[in-house]
Amino acid sequence: MKAPALGFRRLARDGAARRGRVTTAHGSFETPAFMPVGTAGTVKGLTPEQVAATGAEIILGNTYHLMLRPGAERVARLGGLHRFMNWPGPILTDSGGFQVMSLAELRKITDEGATFKSHIDGSRHELTPERAVEIQRLLGSDITMVLDECTPFPVEREDAEKSMELSMRWANRCKDAFEARPGYGLFGIVQGSVFEDLREKSAAALAGIGFDGYAVGGLAVGEGQATMLRVLDATVPALPEDRPRYLMGVGKPDDIVAAVRRGIDMFDCVLPTRSGRTGQAFTRRAVLNLRNARHQDDPRPLDPDCACPTCRDYSRAYLHYLFKAGEMLGPILLTLHNLSYYQELMAALRKPIEDGELDDFAAAFKKQQAEGDLPAL
Amino acid sequence: MKAPALGFRRLARDGAARRGRVTTAHGSFETPAFMPVGTAGTVKGLTPEQVAATGAEIILGNTYHLMLRPGAERVARLGGLHRFMNWPGPILTDSGGFQVMSLAELRKITDEGATFKSHIDGSRHELTPERAVEIQRLLGSDITMVLDECTPFPVEREDAEKSMELSMRWANRCKDAFEARPGYGLFGIVQGSVFEDLREKSAAALAGIGFDGYAVGGLAVGEGQATMLRVLDATVPALPEDRPRYLMGVGKPDDIVAAVRRGIDMFDCVLPTRSGRTGQAFTRRAVLNLRNARHQDDPRPLDPDCACPTCRDYSRAYLHYLFKAGEMLGPILLTLHNLSYYQELMAALRKPIEDGELDDFAAAFKKQQAEGDLPAL
Repeated sequence: MKAPALGFRRLARDGAARRGRVTTAHGSFETPAFMPVGTAGTVKGLTPEQVAATGAEIILGNTYHLMLRPGAERVARLGGLHRFMNWPGPILTDSGGFQVMSLAELRKITDEGATFKSHIDGSRHELTPERAVEIQRLLGSDITMVLDECTPFPVEREDAEKSMELSMRWANRCKDAFEARPGYGLFGIVQGSVFEDLREKSAAALAGIGFDGYAVGGLAVGEGQATMLRVLDATVPALPEDRPRYLMGVGKPDDIVAAVRRGIDMFDCVLPTRSGRTGQAFTRRAVLNLRNARHQDDPRPLDPDCACPTCRDYSRAYLHYLFKAGEMLGPILLTLHNLSYYQELMAALRKPIEDGELDDFAAAFKKQQAEGDLPAL
Repeated sequence: MKAPALGFRRLARDGAARRGRVTTAHGSFETPAFMPVGTAGTVKGLTPEQVAATGAEIILGNTYHLMLRPGAERVARLGGLHRFMNWPGPILTDSGGFQVMSLAELRKITDEGATFKSHIDGSRHELTPERAVEIQRLLGSDITMVLDECTPFPVEREDAEKSMELSMRWANRCKDAFEARPGYGLFGIVQGSVFEDLREKSAAALAGIGFDGYAVGGLAVGEGQATMLRVLDATVPALPEDRPRYLMGVGKPDDIVAAVRRGIDMFDCVLPTRSGRTGQAFTRRAVLNLRNARHQDDPRPLDPDCACPTCRDYSRAYLHYLFKAGEMLGPILLTLHNLSYYQELMAALRKPIEDGELDDFAAAFKKQQAEGDLPAL
């Protein structure tokens, strides 16, 4: 196997948890890392400068959305996704498998690939493993994800096995289609639903093909945290030690802490951005609903210990008011805060791994969350 | 008459045009000045830092909106509007007269004041000259506007005269109710529709009462630019030379150039912000509709000579895409650009007044606008 196109240095470990650094064509990022979701070529509501100011070093884009609009060839003509959206740092693009599967009646899967109708205008499209890789090359993604069939949940074991095997054949074709270049990498995706032996088999199959990183897909789909962690316990040990591991679509802050302890290096989730737009704020102590009338006269920040601009400059009363009035600045300020909170959490996780104190951190984290919100004024 | 509470220095003049500086309790601003509209305690879509970065030194808030939600007393308890919305600079608040008048069926005007039903929840409210001044004191406005009856357009002369006279009685009561403090000022508002003699009479009445500044209200309501300028020609000479003059709700860039030449110092208008949210961009050469498909492959900025972040970092193609996709960043980036354009225009107007070259500037401005958009690629 030739040298990996994507750099990954493991700087420290504590139990199964790892502290590392991934180097791409557009710079490096520290792990464990949280990637804000910029599905459609923008992290909703924020400028890239604001996203970077939260501490984010890598963001996520989506093949499915960008292939339909504005189109991968158009993005390529305009200089690639980094330039198009003005994000100079690393970008990982999801392959679109998850989105295509969720189209339900609008798609058809064969061994060759997926055909589907656009949710925007009903036009017909095809997504094969080869095309998914090509689109991500046109976008200029630093990290390309293989096309996979995202197995529905719940699912019978037999169907999960067939689906996983299809994903492994597609992974193989993606590897063949991917042109290795320094600083650009291709990640495989483990499937197999909640069946440990299928997950192990999938992980082994991907390791046999050889990828620049390994993702765990098909989780956070309703199986619950206990089941998710059980699957991780079976999957992660079967993945190569020397490559980054990415748990797709996860998750809540305590999901992330638990998954880092099991050896996951990378995360993405819509929770901080989507919740921010609907008035939910993550803090060290609690999740607050800013639409609640109890905040209307509260001069305190969301979290007095948070260093983000929202907590520095605005009261809960003002944030409550913005949501009641339907002002754009409400979603903007809460998205800023939530992404800052997630990035602060990742930074807070890195240090104890270096110091061998991750168990203590996890215990303190759990205790603080159990305390609930600040006492009433 | 005692010394004015609001500082105003005339630094230069060119014909009727003036170059000045207004000093308030929250800092000074250069004139001619454009005030971005922050009706409901936020300039829609932008953080205050972004608003300040466009070059804006003073913003506008609205009594009517803020009295209904979140309530003037609540804002006062939370430390005043500057702190509430995190804008440390000068704030001018409109009195709410214009908004109340536009409620049509929902309001009743008597000599005492206006009673109306909230557009939010139908609750009943009263706005008298005294209450309008009190609300603006609770908000902490640097510049308080008198309550006026905004005369509808078109209107019979007799009705315009009655309406203007009512506004003058209210202006008198506002002056009595306003507590003079250093750095805080009260502006009178000239009414009289399109009738020059009524405008002159109104201006003389206000000058007799004595205000810290003088606004021209009831224009930009459909009378057209020629009529508006004719009214200004009759009104401005009747206003005191040593106090700032504010043309309310105006306007398009060429309205502003024409009004500055007639001696107006301050402006506000929703055009740059509202148009920005719907996809219109003001440039030196043309107004562009970013929703138009001709922009979809255009790698050029809105205006290659504009120094704003939107023109520095984004293509027309990306902006077009954001509006087609309904992404929040589209309105944000266009609002940023449009406010920057307006502030650049004001800065560009100040220099030739100092140099006695305003006529040349106005001619060059007109010529550039006539050229239209950049040539097609």
